[in-house]
Amino acid sequence: GPLKEVLFFPTEVACIEHVFNPDSPFPCPCSLPHGVQTSFSRLLAHILSASSSLDVCMFAFTSMSLSRAVLALQTRGVTVRIFTDVAYILITGSQIGAMRKAGICVRSDSGAVHMHHKFAVVDGRRLITGSLNWTMTAIQSNKENVLVTEETDLVQPFIAEFKRLWDVNDPA
Amino acid sequence: GPLKEVLFFPTEVACIEHVFNPDSPFPCPCSLPHGVQTSFSRLLAHILSASSSLDVCMFAFTSMSLSRAVLALQTRGVTVRIFTDVAYILITGSQIGAMRKAGICVRSDSGAVHMHHKFAVVDGRRLITGSLNWTMTAIQSNKENVLVTEETDLVQPFIAEFKRLWDVNDPA
Ligand SMILES: [Zn+2]
Ligand SMILES: [Zn+2]
Repeated sequence: GPLKEVLFFPTEVACIEHVFNPDSPFPCPCSLPHGVQTSFSRLLAHILSASSSLDVCMFAFTSMSLSRAVLALQTRGVTVRIFTDVAYILITGSQIGAMRKAGICVRSDSGAVHMHHKFAVVDGRRLITGSLNWTMTAIQSNKENVLVTEETDLVQPFIAEFKRLWDVNDPA
Repeated sequence: GPLKEVLFFPTEVACIEHVFNPDSPFPCPCSLPHGVQTSFSRLLAHILSASSSLDVCMFAFTSMSLSRAVLALQTRGVTVRIFTDVAYILITGSQIGAMRKAGICVRSDSGAVHMHHKFAVVDGRRLITGSLNWTMTAIQSNKENVLVTEETDLVQPFIAEFKRLWDVNDPA
């Protein structure tokens, strides 16, 4: 059947360089454990699997490693769109400014209420959703879940919701 | 295939009395719209479908209507267990005290980090998970999602996570 995977956090602590540089001939010199697959390395791998598009709908986005993954996709020519909560764009450590500087299209909800979603869709096909905001506290400390699936009945409603939020909040 | 449903919030505003009293011969006298199925009435119906057990793993729980649903299950003889964040038990409007008074078993995480999950498992078979805390702000105001499924590959990991958190935090 289609992909169905559940990841729980906090993640184990381990080096994630291999996710970014799978073909590197050099061993990583850092002091973290290597060769360990963790919830976080799985999450990064799902995001980095994008070949054509990544739509991110995320309440809080401060994680440098997730920012690195998104910027790597943008550099690779993947079409990235980010929808976020207006109140969280300016918080300390927000990666949204860096996204905009890199030329990524960012939109936000103008309302007074929270845009509390935490999901992403890879290539219009793979849904990543759950309780996890893209912050280091969520990844390294909190009890969190992330569900990854390519079940069409689950993915399509999220694609429609992203399109709706994106279109309604067109600044043009 | 197995149940797969996605609900988005904020919900439409409509009367939910029919979910609690589907067989009532009396028309509801309240001024809200009637006969309307909403994301919230669907969520309540999934919870109220429990016939043997309800396991709730919820960061914030202040909604009176969700509290009413859980208490109705307890009255009906359904085995209810609630796992929650220790910091949120005492906030204004928390329903956790009412749950305990009703004889429902409640456990919480003792750590300094957030128990940020927002999921429930009905009858060990139906998973309800997403971004939505069980609060009126989440239900009526925020942009939120809830995914409901009986896909075994998705449900089983959440059952195992609940068991793990429940067992680790046994106060006895
Ligand atoms: Zn390393
Ligand atoms: Zn009514």
